[in-house]
Amino acid sequence: MFNKVLICGVGLIGGSFALALKKAGAARQIVGVGRSAASLARAQELGIIDAAATDIAAAMDGADLVLIAAPVAQTGAILRSLAPYLKPGVIVTDAGSTKGDVVAAARAELGDMINQFVPGHPIAGRESNGPDAAIDDLYVGKKVVLTALPENSAADVERVASAWLACGAVIHRLSAQEHDAVFASVSHLPHVLAYALVADIAAKPHAATLFQYAASGFRDFTRISGSSPEMWRDISLANRDALLQEVDAYLMQLTRMRQMLAESDGAALEDVYTTAQKARLDWMAAIEAAEKNRREPAREQGGD
Amino acid sequence: MFNKVLICGVGLIGGSFALALKKAGAARQIVGVGRSAASLARAQELGIIDAAATDIAAAMDGADLVLIAAPVAQTGAILRSLAPYLKPGVIVTDAGSTKGDVVAAARAELGDMINQFVPGHPIAGRESNGPDAAIDDLYVGKKVVLTALPENSAADVERVASAWLACGAVIHRLSAQEHDAVFASVSHLPHVLAYALVADIAAKPHAATLFQYAASGFRDFTRISGSSPEMWRDISLANRDALLQEVDAYLMQLTRMRQMLAESDGAALEDVYTTAQKARLDWMAAIEAAEKNRREPAREQGGD
Repeated sequence: MFNKVLICGVGLIGGSFALALKKAGAARQIVGVGRSAASLARAQELGIIDAAATDIAAAMDGADLVLIAAPVAQTGAILRSLAPYLKPGVIVTDAGSTKGDVVAAARAELGDMINQFVPGHPIAGRESNGPDAAIDDLYVGKKVVLTALPENSAADVERVASAWLACGAVIHRLSAQEHDAVFASVSHLPHVLAYALVADIAAKPHAATLFQYAASGFRDFTRISGSSPEMWRDISLANRDALLQEVDAYLMQLTRMRQMLAESDGAALEDVYTTAQKARLDWMAAIEAAEKNRREPAREQGGD
Repeated sequence: MFNKVLICGVGLIGGSFALALKKAGAARQIVGVGRSAASLARAQELGIIDAAATDIAAAMDGADLVLIAAPVAQTGAILRSLAPYLKPGVIVTDAGSTKGDVVAAARAELGDMINQFVPGHPIAGRESNGPDAAIDDLYVGKKVVLTALPENSAADVERVASAWLACGAVIHRLSAQEHDAVFASVSHLPHVLAYALVADIAAKPHAATLFQYAASGFRDFTRISGSSPEMWRDISLANRDALLQEVDAYLMQLTRMRQMLAESDGAALEDVYTTAQKARLDWMAAIEAAEKNRREPAREQGGD
């Protein structure tokens, strides 16, 4: 049970965390802070937060857990505003999609208090954003990756894990570097590729005709290109080095396939397509098996 | 009303055409031919076809419309088997995903009878295949692109259009070359890109870890990589020249974005992302508007 949880950013991610903690009876009080007074008022109206704080000192008074759920580029500024009021024993965590840059910002802003910052990343989302999109079961059965620092105490990491477990999530553990490499590959690169395709088509003189014939395969392939450009600019820059490696590997793969096509090497193309299809079908089968277990109580998974 | 419709390939596409024609009362008799005796027997059991033909001569006797709904690479062989029995006035059409190669095969196999071949491509599909996947409303509200040849009579083209209209489809008209360029861009390229991503990830030593963290964005982006490798090998080769152009344009676009990332040029990246997001949102809005009109009777659209 937490006494007072402070949520910095009461949108989809922070708001859903608040609603899930409330539903689980895991927090006595939830207070929100944020840049938008309208969002805070709306979050209070929706019962996501008990109070909206305008004064950081008052907001931090009595808080035992702080979640930063804002665009990653704002993490440093938010930590700077919290640092003067950060008492020993209070834990700060975050929900950012990149971890290396967040950890660097936290080290810069928190200095000797870095042990109080436990970085995290819930792997969950919806098409919509803002407090109105928040739901109490967003994290049920979803992964939350904690990228604990060497300075963190095991007890503090467990405390953050307990909050996410109360939300129904499954806890995974990676280093910040492992995390960023993994998500560069399976999330950040696909976003770049989808943005590239739609921008490429949109720039053609006959774009209107092309879009007219785009069908369901195109719709699914490009869904992530509907994501916030600002957010993905920040993620791209925050995870630049890992993302560059993935883009380069992909460019090589696509260039090899271009060559197969230019040489009309159907057997080689079919090999690549078959490898991909098999991996995709195996992955979907694993997901479906996991979905079946979704209603069982979430448990911490060890060793990853 | 057609007297006897011959369907070459009684899977999802051919089977759904047969079911839709039956439902509309637009065909007195539907006969199937195909490589697989099991599929033909199953199609007859399901009421998709009235009879399964083993003898092409008998099958063609009295037929006034033939639909080829087989992988595009088989079109030439199928036309070769039909040609000796193709009487004047009988119309042959197809449902292939590429048109330039199909037209070339038809010219080679039909010679002076090329005027009897009206190429087509229904833009519809499902995840599953085979006769069991066939449904009578697959084409309702869906586009069918006819790529009529200069040799076709207007009456024959209208006759093929009338069959698809009876299935509930909306008729579009393009040249074979326009068709292939459009679909290289909005369908064939995305398939190649999705296969490339999954094959790229599957080849990495830590692929299992990567797939473990892949989430819904990855799932939608890669859905089309679950498609048949053989079918997409054939499509890639059949539409090689147009597809190569698209791959090259995409490689340039991605290389430009790689440079922006390497230079940490957030403004330039955000521009590309914003262009893509806007185009995607506009396209989805147009689709949703079209969906609203879906239940209205399908009408032929002119001029495209």
